[in-house]
Amino acid sequence: MITVTSFVWVPEFARGQVRDVRVRWALEEAGLAYDNRLIGEEQASPAYRLEQPFAQVPVMHDGKLGLFESGAIVMHIGEKSEALLPRDPEGRARAMCWAFAALNSVEPFLMQLAEIDFFHADEEWAKLRRPGAEEMVRKRIGEVSAWLGESDYLEGRFTAGDLLMASVLRILDHTDIVKTDPRLGPYLARCLARPAFGRAYAAHMASFGEG
Amino acid sequence: MITVTSFVWVPEFARGQVRDVRVRWALEEAGLAYDNRLIGEEQASPAYRLEQPFAQVPVMHDGKLGLFESGAIVMHIGEKSEALLPRDPEGRARAMCWAFAALNSVEPFLMQLAEIDFFHADEEWAKLRRPGAEEMVRKRIGEVSAWLGESDYLEGRFTAGDLLMASVLRILDHTDIVKTDPRLGPYLARCLARPAFGRAYAAHMASFGEG
Repeated sequence: MITVTSFVWVPEFARGQVRDVRVRWALEEAGLAYDNRLIGEEQASPAYRLEQPFAQVPVMHDGKLGLFESGAIVMHIGEKSEALLPRDPEGRARAMCWAFAALNSVEPFLMQLAEIDFFHADEEWAKLRRPGAEEMVRKRIGEVSAWLGESDYLEGRFTAGDLLMASVLRILDHTDIVKTDPRLGPYLARCLARPAFGRAYAAHMASFGEG
Repeated sequence: MITVTSFVWVPEFARGQVRDVRVRWALEEAGLAYDNRLIGEEQASPAYRLEQPFAQVPVMHDGKLGLFESGAIVMHIGEKSEALLPRDPEGRARAMCWAFAALNSVEPFLMQLAEIDFFHADEEWAKLRRPGAEEMVRKRIGEVSAWLGESDYLEGRFTAGDLLMASVLRILDHTDIVKTDPRLGPYLARCLARPAFGRAYAAHMASFGEG
């Protein structure tokens, strides 16, 4: 009843980082089975654009309902499972705050740095810009770290907000910026040690062999 | 019962663009009254960081519940009002997809261009990078435009997804990129012509005189 799209092939450096990982992780936390639907050349087709306006993955179908944007899909799965979204209105609303914080207040800065490192490292503008981009990342990372303090999770217990924040922090796996933060390093390791993430990651990586 | 924070002062170029506009707009669409709480020097205080981990506005209090991130707040308001979120599960889920699309798939690219224009225009890296940043913006804008087609709104009727997409498209008001798009130009004008936006914008601008 649930299907999730993923790419049949991506370059080596992108494996493990494509956004279907986030949705697979949420489904594993929720204990919901799903079928994987591999997307190859049809990524560029008008038909797939009707499912995903930006020609990306993942798209999730839940019965007749078609959803795009990993953030929206994770929240949709959360509404089916207390493992991701607390049932009390306050806990639910706070998880939603952190979901948007991860994707709108943290990820854009980390993506700027990752794009410099992966796509533009040899370009003059990127060399000039990198220190400023890293400074912005460290500021935001520091603010999340300060909020976290000595807590295990952003709001006391694991929620969809942590799932998305950890997914965003993973973007800088090629640097030591998150790893060496005394709070966020252990936080990220704690989130990624969850069996649900392990299953999601393994399924994601295995899917590239299926093309 | 509802309070929303906004800054007592911001530079001229930022007036009209601070994110409390999005929340004020959502409250006006929903027909919910609110009190404005002006934030000045306390922006940098540890107490305000407990309300807003990034020391920004807006924070909304709804009774005892404290919320941050304009996207999360708009969705919270949407749950109180069909004016923003359709009551049927499919319409609701699709609005959520576009809310995340606006904030995670469109806004980061527009913000990169706006940051170059407003904060780094004279820097060498920014001059070298601007054409590439504009190209990315045009790609994403074009994808939203293609999706919209001849429709008035992204999913047939106005939702929180349109509110956030229009708020994001406004970021490039200093350029003609959105205005000259044959679909998105009229779409943005249509969204901003809504009386609720007019009231929200006026209240936002008036608040700077209250410091």
